[in-house]
Amino acid sequence: MREQKGLNLTMLCDFYELTMGNGYLASGMGDRITYFDLFFRTVPDGGGFAIAAGLEQVIDYIQDLHFGPEDIAYLRGRGIFSEEYLTYLANFHFTGDIWAVPEGTPVFPREPILVVRAPAIQAQLLETYMLCALNHQSLIATKANRIVRAAQGRTVLEFGSRRAQGSDAAILGARAAYIGGCAGTACALSDQLFGVPAGGTMAHAWVQMFDTELDAFRAYCQTYPTNATLLVDTYNTLQSGVPNAIRAFNEILKPQGITKCGIRLDSGDLAYLTRKARKMLDEAGWTECTITCSNALDEYLIQDLISQGACIDTFGVGERLITARSEPVFGGVYKLAAVEDEAGNITPKIKISENLDKITNPHFKKLYRFYGRDTGKAMADYLCVYDETVDDTKPLTIFDPDATWKEKELTDFTARQLLEPIFQHGELVYRRPALQEIKTYCAQQVDSLWEEVQRFENPHHYYVDLSQKLWNIKNDLLQEKR
Amino acid sequence: MREQKGLNLTMLCDFYELTMGNGYLASGMGDRITYFDLFFRTVPDGGGFAIAAGLEQVIDYIQDLHFGPEDIAYLRGRGIFSEEYLTYLANFHFTGDIWAVPEGTPVFPREPILVVRAPAIQAQLLETYMLCALNHQSLIATKANRIVRAAQGRTVLEFGSRRAQGSDAAILGARAAYIGGCAGTACALSDQLFGVPAGGTMAHAWVQMFDTELDAFRAYCQTYPTNATLLVDTYNTLQSGVPNAIRAFNEILKPQGITKCGIRLDSGDLAYLTRKARKMLDEAGWTECTITCSNALDEYLIQDLISQGACIDTFGVGERLITARSEPVFGGVYKLAAVEDEAGNITPKIKISENLDKITNPHFKKLYRFYGRDTGKAMADYLCVYDETVDDTKPLTIFDPDATWKEKELTDFTARQLLEPIFQHGELVYRRPALQEIKTYCAQQVDSLWEEVQRFENPHHYYVDLSQKLWNIKNDLLQEKR
Repeated sequence: MREQKGLNLTMLCDFYELTMGNGYLASGMGDRITYFDLFFRTVPDGGGFAIAAGLEQVIDYIQDLHFGPEDIAYLRGRGIFSEEYLTYLANFHFTGDIWAVPEGTPVFPREPILVVRAPAIQAQLLETYMLCALNHQSLIATKANRIVRAAQGRTVLEFGSRRAQGSDAAILGARAAYIGGCAGTACALSDQLFGVPAGGTMAHAWVQMFDTELDAFRAYCQTYPTNATLLVDTYNTLQSGVPNAIRAFNEILKPQGITKCGIRLDSGDLAYLTRKARKMLDEAGWTECTITCSNALDEYLIQDLISQGACIDTFGVGERLITARSEPVFGGVYKLAAVEDEAGNITPKIKISENLDKITNPHFKKLYRFYGRDTGKAMADYLCVYDETVDDTKPLTIFDPDATWKEKELTDFTARQLLEPIFQHGELVYRRPALQEIKTYCAQQVDSLWEEVQRFENPHHYYVDLSQKLWNIKNDLLQEKR
Repeated sequence: MREQKGLNLTMLCDFYELTMGNGYLASGMGDRITYFDLFFRTVPDGGGFAIAAGLEQVIDYIQDLHFGPEDIAYLRGRGIFSEEYLTYLANFHFTGDIWAVPEGTPVFPREPILVVRAPAIQAQLLETYMLCALNHQSLIATKANRIVRAAQGRTVLEFGSRRAQGSDAAILGARAAYIGGCAGTACALSDQLFGVPAGGTMAHAWVQMFDTELDAFRAYCQTYPTNATLLVDTYNTLQSGVPNAIRAFNEILKPQGITKCGIRLDSGDLAYLTRKARKMLDEAGWTECTITCSNALDEYLIQDLISQGACIDTFGVGERLITARSEPVFGGVYKLAAVEDEAGNITPKIKISENLDKITNPHFKKLYRFYGRDTGKAMADYLCVYDETVDDTKPLTIFDPDATWKEKELTDFTARQLLEPIFQHGELVYRRPALQEIKTYCAQQVDSLWEEVQRFENPHHYYVDLSQKLWNIKNDLLQEKR
């Protein structure tokens, strides 16, 4: 795979990260150890869960973090930063700790998907890029997973580069879509960089370049006899496209004994046209010819097409996946959860809001997921204070943090810590899984969710509970700030 | 400004551009000269016009186009490309011509905003990236322009990096938002790379890091006395935030004779809170203190806030701008318009569709905009065949291409060709304007549109007419394909 030599993204930060950094240093707080949680508050599209993605790019970013001479010169030119701070930045590299849930993990609102423990200046600096990378790829992986589930085992391909919001959105969007379950992409660069299988055959221009549609199809079958997927809707799908495709298959593939081929439709009523096309292909003996469809598809259109008996083997999904069109924002946030003094005492911090949903879960925390031993299904997630440990050989009573009288005793469960160490003292300690491994893990983990949680509309609310100790700390902080 | 050393994006193409290229070569069509139009069909958000943006990145891309040894090795590894084609790619550089409307130009559906004349292999290869770059930045510039017009002269800043769909979406989105009328960005890298003014002061974490809100405000004013914008909504805006801000201003700025400062609100009812805060600030003598607001703003919320008398000087607009949340897809397409034989004869090509809106305008074309000599206002756009020339010293009769009986005689107008030469025979011939120049030009050109065209809802339909000659050619092609 080609190395992704890109722009140094250290300066891809909100300017206030820099002004705050300079201010922390001036206020003697530059080296104060802080804990930040990265989490989100609502699942896009009203879904029951999101898929975490983007950690690999966060790792690349942190490993490449540095301010070059031109960066320091730019900052000095702004005239508001102290020389002490500029020297700090010039010598800067990340020295903190990071924990994160592995890519491909289903995640739920208000639980940390990444935790940073680092000196204030450093922890603050990471905010913008980490949010950008995790928000973007989690958004696309989550959307892709919905679309793939709607396709009920049929192949889904990501076709959206041309409508992506910039190159990264195209390249990394294809990566995230693959994690979420797409089988491949149209984007050649995503294949080369990340090993997302890329494919594609022809556009309408190919057909228009020849004197006739049949000539165009013949030429394509001659060049690619074992990979002939013909675009049949340039003129008229049923009257010219499909008959010409069959004729070209008969003339060029049949004599070579080739039975595998395909047609693609990019317009019109896909339910009606594919049923008719399937019949024509089958009657002509091309039963192994696959039908690929594209044209502004998403999970709802795919559900409808399948329920109407459309004969589609592969869905090519473009703009509605690559931009997550129905809800193009993943609202991850990055909030201070605790500070540590020089003696190592950790003080929890809370952010209050008039809006109850915006009140944060304070403190340096652990995140567990409980699975039923018999079913293998995820039962609840559980946040506790860093010094607590769940013993899953004993029963555990969990309760709803809002409606605390709702209790449940868990027995016969396994507890898994979701946050894995990624960096320790600035060093990468995480074995970066291969992309295919992430994709497989994602499918397994989604499978561990009950169907009720997977429903598109009004899914079952999955519990993210707090330990009694954490709940008490949060409640005390709320009382105190009243 | 720092040079943007990024990834070579030659391989950022749909795989079918490569399979078609190989096929064109195999079919003896590799060097056939083709003409492609890049255009869009509908304005996002139901608006009356879009703003073209992204040309500078297209220029960078074309100048950097090349396949390196690792690219050739990847392609060879796919096992479907001829060695002749791989050799072609290894020696490839762009040799064609490109015309485009300048960045910042208001543009309308179905008119070409970029035209390519190049050998088929080359013209095809450019499709994906050019669409991605122009779709993305045109989307954001168009959205930014709507938001800026809603703000009626108040300052609008782009604050969305963390919610952008990847790094490019953040960096180039800030650039596009600036073209569309934003005064600046939060993104430090966009400032460094493109000169989009970046600013920012503090997040909630700053306030939480100190023992009290007042301590946090004092420390900030001490570090940045001439740039003190304090975030007042961490605990309670009116009961603690604004009073503490006034106290810090009084203690630290007043003795230094500083009268300029600011507060920022990121939550709550912004109409109510800003009216109250304005009153408190004014009564305390801080009449020059500006009020900045953020929190999921867009053109409609800004209109509402202004109509409710909110006292807001600056709007910080995040996710709804940087993702164009209400309509995150700009539907630019790239269609074959003509082919040229070895004798230089140009044959127009048309793409038919059941959907009338999807029928293309054939041929190699010129695009004119007509302005009234007296008003300076844009009256209509006009597409004609490449060998036609409009003489604006004489009256010209234009007609509606769909309702051909609707005619209008233009007199007293100036005709401006919108498509400027960018590349000729592969060489850049365009003077790249500075970003500030593009921004100023954009504002002037938007100003040249009648108010009716600028309306957010149900704007007046601006005419994009065809010359009689072009209309006849299109009509003949449609009759022929029937």
